[in-house]
Amino acid sequence: MIAAYSATSQVRVNAALETLFTAPSPELARLYEAMRYSVMNGGKRVRPLLAYAACEALGGKAEQANGAACAVELIHAYSLVHDDLPAMDDDDLRRGQPTTHKKFDEACAILAGDGLQSLAFSALLDPRLSNADADIRLQMVSALAQAAGPAGMVGGQAIDLGSVGLKLDQKALEYMHRHKTGALIEVSVTLGALASGRAEKDELKSLQTYAQAIGLAFQVQDDILDVESDTETLGKRQGADIARDKPTYPSLLGLDAAKAYALELRDQALHALRPFDAAAEPLRDLARYIVERRH
Amino acid sequence: MIAAYSATSQVRVNAALETLFTAPSPELARLYEAMRYSVMNGGKRVRPLLAYAACEALGGKAEQANGAACAVELIHAYSLVHDDLPAMDDDDLRRGQPTTHKKFDEACAILAGDGLQSLAFSALLDPRLSNADADIRLQMVSALAQAAGPAGMVGGQAIDLGSVGLKLDQKALEYMHRHKTGALIEVSVTLGALASGRAEKDELKSLQTYAQAIGLAFQVQDDILDVESDTETLGKRQGADIARDKPTYPSLLGLDAAKAYALELRDQALHALRPFDAAAEPLRDLARYIVERRH
Repeated sequence: MIAAYSATSQVRVNAALETLFTAPSPELARLYEAMRYSVMNGGKRVRPLLAYAACEALGGKAEQANGAACAVELIHAYSLVHDDLPAMDDDDLRRGQPTTHKKFDEACAILAGDGLQSLAFSALLDPRLSNADADIRLQMVSALAQAAGPAGMVGGQAIDLGSVGLKLDQKALEYMHRHKTGALIEVSVTLGALASGRAEKDELKSLQTYAQAIGLAFQVQDDILDVESDTETLGKRQGADIARDKPTYPSLLGLDAAKAYALELRDQALHALRPFDAAAEPLRDLARYIVERRH
Repeated sequence: MIAAYSATSQVRVNAALETLFTAPSPELARLYEAMRYSVMNGGKRVRPLLAYAACEALGGKAEQANGAACAVELIHAYSLVHDDLPAMDDDDLRRGQPTTHKKFDEACAILAGDGLQSLAFSALLDPRLSNADADIRLQMVSALAQAAGPAGMVGGQAIDLGSVGLKLDQKALEYMHRHKTGALIEVSVTLGALASGRAEKDELKSLQTYAQAIGLAFQVQDDILDVESDTETLGKRQGADIARDKPTYPSLLGLDAAKAYALELRDQALHALRPFDAAAEPLRDLARYIVERRH
């Protein structure tokens, strides 16, 4: 079931994203091409799916969350472009394709990432992609800036870089993940819910609890797959995290306990959705899928 | 006169900026320190001055523009941090101090820049720094995202990087400058005017015409100073642009014609301010100062 919902979300967000990469002049063509390359690369669009599904869980139409879906994907894409830079993770491949700084050059990749961040805020307010009230859109901008910024995703990347070679315990590892990947996953749900125009405070809180649980589950499963999968299935070098001496859930807890933890997080996520009706089924399906996926 | 107004603006914006760099946890201390280092470095705060002066020109109180002033300075600071990176301009010194990637490291500088961009949007909406209506604040976010993004400042940097060694004509050079530095100068005035809560459409347009003129004047004068000043007065290597074979106004027009052009732009700026009363005097003083300054 989640495969069909995911495919529909991908088509929807890709169509919305495509509207954002028309260079306003020939001088800017290469920058826009680099931004487009960084985004339209066959990503799974998990964050847009979350935005759409949260919007629908509250009775909104998925289309209302187009701005939210684009915004979180643009932030995600920019973070990958900068993360792949030589001074950061120094990766040549992303989803089997040359990373942006390999396809273009390093300066272009830095600027493409910078531009994508600005574009995320523009997308959130783009009248073609969003029709929420001014008060709600302000809440959305504020939530996105917080989640993407130094107290959120960027902070998580800084902690991650500072932790290579360190012996992090589980608490420290989770603190890093809650920032590096969790903040953006949580805000995807928040923005989608807000975009519905129907989000009550306690519903937002339940959805955020759900998002925190699946965000961690996603990471735990990623670590498990990094141990178990081969490079071809994964689309990146197998054992990459271990090779860098990064702490992982399997290395901290052992593989079996890590698997049990992933299931526990899935159950926490499903529990948080108990107040919701059948419209939240895609969110439930996603929680189940995250711990079952093989790549 | 502009010296006194500038000093007051600096004190005001620095106090507002200082509220933004408190790390929420010890794990994030280094990132926040790098962001603070990149911003609290004795910059001239020209963009905040423009925001305050535009707000006051429309009868607002300067304090109303605190969010706008912080936001444009944070964007400016982030652009410098990324511009100084080895893959970009590769500068070791900024205002006589080690650049952020020299003081910290390259990865930290990339992330500090990324975080400062997010922080700019947060600052614009920070209730401690702004009290404008929701509709107006949305206009501000939208204008900032546009000006900072790929169709604005980031686009200008991309054009600049792509033009090294090329024989740009004056039109192409101005197109680059209107993006690279002009967009942020113009939006400084726009945000300050909006923050007053009293901006009429034609007043906004006059202020933007003013900002476009002083933005170019600033750049022309910078190019002139790059030829005429010594390294110590300028705080960066004298002749740096020429050494890189970057096109400049003196190299295109000749030194005397470049000086005449700067004065013409000053006059255009002053002309645009004719509808305004004495409250716009700081903006007029600034236009005069830009072409008279020696560093």
